[in-house]
Amino acid sequence: MDRETLLNYIRPRMSEKRYMHTIGVMETAIELANRYGENPEKAEIAAILHDVAKFEDEEAMRKIVREEGLGERLLPWGAEIMHGPIAAYRAKHELGVQDEDILNAMRYHTTGRVGMSRLEKIIYIADMIEPSRKFDGVEALRKVATEDLTKAMQACIYHSVKFLVDTKQAIYPLSIECYNHYLGEEY
Amino acid sequence: MDRETLLNYIRPRMSEKRYMHTIGVMETAIELANRYGENPEKAEIAAILHDVAKFEDEEAMRKIVREEGLGERLLPWGAEIMHGPIAAYRAKHELGVQDEDILNAMRYHTTGRVGMSRLEKIIYIADMIEPSRKFDGVEALRKVATEDLTKAMQACIYHSVKFLVDTKQAIYPLSIECYNHYLGEEY
Repeated sequence: MDRETLLNYIRPRMSEKRYMHTIGVMETAIELANRYGENPEKAEIAAILHDVAKFEDEEAMRKIVREEGLGERLLPWGAEIMHGPIAAYRAKHELGVQDEDILNAMRYHTTGRVGMSRLEKIIYIADMIEPSRKFDGVEALRKVATEDLTKAMQACIYHSVKFLVDTKQAIYPLSIECYNHYLGEEY
Repeated sequence: MDRETLLNYIRPRMSEKRYMHTIGVMETAIELANRYGENPEKAEIAAILHDVAKFEDEEAMRKIVREEGLGERLLPWGAEIMHGPIAAYRAKHELGVQDEDILNAMRYHTTGRVGMSRLEKIIYIADMIEPSRKFDGVEALRKVATEDLTKAMQACIYHSVKFLVDTKQAIYPLSIECYNHYLGEEY
């Protein structure tokens, strides 16, 4: 799918800041794909579309989750957790994206999960480390992302869970399963 | 059930240090029970027995979990998570404890869960704040435990999850559900 078409699709659906973030995720994801032997076109599509639903109305998201059977357990979690699955829904039904790996990379880019594919890890990591991200520890995450994809995923999910706990925010079950998994044991 | 009988039952099953911890939990739990309108005898029984399985052989615990249907998901988590449910099993089958609230207080004393009863909260909190516990922040937990039982439970589960994350330890699903619940939203 053509980059310009996709960028034209997302641009009116998000703020300028979120669009610049998306460009950063795209560039970072393509770089990681080339580094780790993933198809860069798949990374590009998933990256461009990952946040397309970020600014949708929350009630409208809930309606889609219910009607399309995206998972009842998403419902109480609000836009922050629903926007990934909704983005995959839009990509599939409005743009005809059929590749389940691309769709999963969009679905799980916020939460992570156990058993992530290479592409899923790339999008999750790119979303955290793209150039416009500024938080304590981001440099260390960028460094490990140049060294080892799995270790980078491990460091990113750890950072994410620690941030949520430190700021007293709820943690989605898939994220804690992913966190537990990357501690190195099979729970 | 008579205090001496229970203490005689647990004493040979644990280290001296764990026994002294248990006495501390018992005294703290009775105090909390009196403060918050719980039956102090139920608190005493649950407190004395809560760690009775702490030093059992892990393979033997797994066997009981499997054969008695205590929950397959306990199996990969080791003695740290299994010893609560196993203690409840021992209390029921060896001492004839029938009260489900007492048994649940033992079962969930390590992990917490959503929907804890007053007695369950008392044992969970007493286990964390009894006098021999020494960790940064324990004084604040002791203080809130004199003020409000639910707020104390909220502070204790938060402290526990934060400690696990800070020390890079896995978090049992029930604990994260409990943590999420006490952040004040219904997930």
